[in-house]
Amino acid sequence: MKIIIIGGVAGGTTAAAKARRNDKTAEIKIFEADQDISYSGCALPYYISNKITDRAEVVPRNAAFFKQKYNVDVFTSHRVLEIKPEVKQIAIENLTTHEFFSESYDKLLISTGAVSTVLPIDGSDKENVFYLRTVANADKIRRFISEVTPKNVVIVGTGFIGMELAESFSTRGIKVTMVELAPHVMPTLDKEMSEYLEEYLRGQKIGLVTGDSAAKFVGSPLVNKVILKSGRELATDFVIMAVGIKPNISLAQKANVQLGTTGAIQVNTKMETSIKDIYACGDCAESFSIITGKVFYRPLGSTANKMGRVAGDQMTGGNLEFHGGLGTGIFKVLDMTVAQIGLTEKEALREGYEVIVSHDRKPDKPKYYGGQEMFIKAVADSKTGRVLGAQIIGPAGVDKRIDIFATAITFGAKAEDLTNLDLAYSPPFSTAKDPVIFTGMILSKG
Amino acid sequence: MKIIIIGGVAGGTTAAAKARRNDKTAEIKIFEADQDISYSGCALPYYISNKITDRAEVVPRNAAFFKQKYNVDVFTSHRVLEIKPEVKQIAIENLTTHEFFSESYDKLLISTGAVSTVLPIDGSDKENVFYLRTVANADKIRRFISEVTPKNVVIVGTGFIGMELAESFSTRGIKVTMVELAPHVMPTLDKEMSEYLEEYLRGQKIGLVTGDSAAKFVGSPLVNKVILKSGRELATDFVIMAVGIKPNISLAQKANVQLGTTGAIQVNTKMETSIKDIYACGDCAESFSIITGKVFYRPLGSTANKMGRVAGDQMTGGNLEFHGGLGTGIFKVLDMTVAQIGLTEKEALREGYEVIVSHDRKPDKPKYYGGQEMFIKAVADSKTGRVLGAQIIGPAGVDKRIDIFATAITFGAKAEDLTNLDLAYSPPFSTAKDPVIFTGMILSKG
Repeated sequence: MKIIIIGGVAGGTTAAAKARRNDKTAEIKIFEADQDISYSGCALPYYISNKITDRAEVVPRNAAFFKQKYNVDVFTSHRVLEIKPEVKQIAIENLTTHEFFSESYDKLLISTGAVSTVLPIDGSDKENVFYLRTVANADKIRRFISEVTPKNVVIVGTGFIGMELAESFSTRGIKVTMVELAPHVMPTLDKEMSEYLEEYLRGQKIGLVTGDSAAKFVGSPLVNKVILKSGRELATDFVIMAVGIKPNISLAQKANVQLGTTGAIQVNTKMETSIKDIYACGDCAESFSIITGKVFYRPLGSTANKMGRVAGDQMTGGNLEFHGGLGTGIFKVLDMTVAQIGLTEKEALREGYEVIVSHDRKPDKPKYYGGQEMFIKAVADSKTGRVLGAQIIGPAGVDKRIDIFATAITFGAKAEDLTNLDLAYSPPFSTAKDPVIFTGMILSKG
Repeated sequence: MKIIIIGGVAGGTTAAAKARRNDKTAEIKIFEADQDISYSGCALPYYISNKITDRAEVVPRNAAFFKQKYNVDVFTSHRVLEIKPEVKQIAIENLTTHEFFSESYDKLLISTGAVSTVLPIDGSDKENVFYLRTVANADKIRRFISEVTPKNVVIVGTGFIGMELAESFSTRGIKVTMVELAPHVMPTLDKEMSEYLEEYLRGQKIGLVTGDSAAKFVGSPLVNKVILKSGRELATDFVIMAVGIKPNISLAQKANVQLGTTGAIQVNTKMETSIKDIYACGDCAESFSIITGKVFYRPLGSTANKMGRVAGDQMTGGNLEFHGGLGTGIFKVLDMTVAQIGLTEKEALREGYEVIVSHDRKPDKPKYYGGQEMFIKAVADSKTGRVLGAQIIGPAGVDKRIDIFATAITFGAKAEDLTNLDLAYSPPFSTAKDPVIFTGMILSKG
């Protein structure tokens, strides 16, 4: 039994570890084009902010670790060039020696992750236009900051990465201006939540330009000005492109592995692709919504881990299945936490639900214990009462409430069910009626 | 329509507010023997520690507030002496004027709460032997501390109140010694969890005497020594008796309202007692376990609120029902949080389950983000995989995980379900595999 895994970040390494726990004798090899494996992509903004100064914290495990702990052979700086399903082989290039060789497989896992979306903007090939996806990307940004000591940055895009980097640069004393094509920042949120976040960011001296986009990066050899579509000009010392990521599916596509409607690799709940003995997991694969049952693309490290565990189990004869996701997302920007789960109001309406919507502001704990208000919007189906989603913005306690929502929504909770939750109450931790319980009360009266 | 409510703390005032929202015209009266209403019993340890210095933070609402906001008439310092179900009346004494009068009712709610358990210990009537149940109790303790500046305290009992007071006194520089009859502190926990807590407390210079009990309080006029059953003597400046609470059921008992096997008032899910038009809620009433379906007595402010909401709704023609509890408990003692939910291992075995047990130590977030390990024990039913309970001790993030367990257990989650939860991940808030997910992985392999 020989298992080959293409890609060694979250999904691939989790799959390898699970496969080894199930099967003590299988030959397991991981090929990774990058130099780093098993790193925490989500840690990169904190590496850039200098919250983490030791690179080893971001990349805690290397090939030797996997060999010793799991007897898994990891080949870094090895690019897989082709998958040949008809002969069950892959073609590989050693990026250091430029040697080419083949490997056969019994089971193959594609966990090639995602790549940053690149827009065809004039000047975007200049050296101070950065993307953030890999540790190498982060190394470059760190090096630039320490060499140049920039005063200003323009971040194009206001999603999770853009927001986390706004914090990273602000805490290093770099003035941040964010550019967003949509009318509001963080366009996955409903409008009023985005507006609330905008108000906070402006108060923190983060510059926000919305309803506009980068048209041209000007300057030589380095960009020193961003010209927007509106004609407005932003002087800057460097640029971050954070306009999203897309599944890295080129290998799969060449091998005629079926892609789904989202553009990512189509998989079933066993993480099987359309081709026998080829599996896929992580940011290159489609997921599906627990709420609607429909496929969606929600590339998240925590989801990649879950998918990897299933893939590793299935490749070794197990019967674990992937149960879908809720698109749970959370980020911290300075002193504010923003989280969302499930469907926003606009998404719920698009899906054809008649919705009940609640808005409330509740402290995370009593005022005398330092409680601070969070702003909660929740959405339920008016026909069944089922909770469909929530968005929360606040300085503290947001992560706990979104995880309560996550758990409740997973089990199909109705608004009234939230009011009955026997949550832990003591003044250092919450209020006697938790904000989630209040939300349930508001929704169930609607 | 005339609603009379006996007792004006959590359950009674919540019921009154809900009844008013449902019925704009009903006459609603609350009679409370104490001077204070609607106070936060859970805040009292923090009032004693001086975290709260303004009494109004503990008693934020008074009779005028309820009249103005809800048109509810609250009579404090009015003791209800008797319930006469046959004529639907109650007899009341105004404790200020010592006048006696009667009131009729259409619906009556008993929310008389609980009282501290009093042990017949010689010397326990002395003035520096305190209980903590009401704001007046807390006032007395505060006054004693400021007048006498005590150096030492003996706390008899190591439950929630005892533990929270250990913190209150320690932070005020008073040396604490706790006495526990059981072999370990916090005997509602499983042994190894109690031991872990004991190790922490001893490290914090809290004196612990276990497997022993107070036999005699010696000194005149004030206690200056506690003699234990073992003969051991503890010099002290004052004593706290915190050996539990019991339902305040004397009025109900006199009126032949049926009590349950727990000794508290028997109620159905509509909070109806055995006598027509008499309801009960809060710490004087029985609850039941969502897990076993059996009645239990778990007096908690958060439960009282839920029961009060149901009682207020039912008395005004609504159809809300009480859905039981999980006995969720949490307390902070110095820098440690201790929480439990559902069944411990010993309780599960007593209930006849064959159990799978997990132990793990996991950080609440990545080490580089200041993560600290929590110690988690969880219990599942080996036949069905259903999660039965959890106990967690740690310095941070315990409240979030116990609330995730609370929500999952409410919906009958199996161990494997925990591994599939789409919880929010970002380094400031958790690890990519949350401790709850890890626990599910360990339990589901068992």
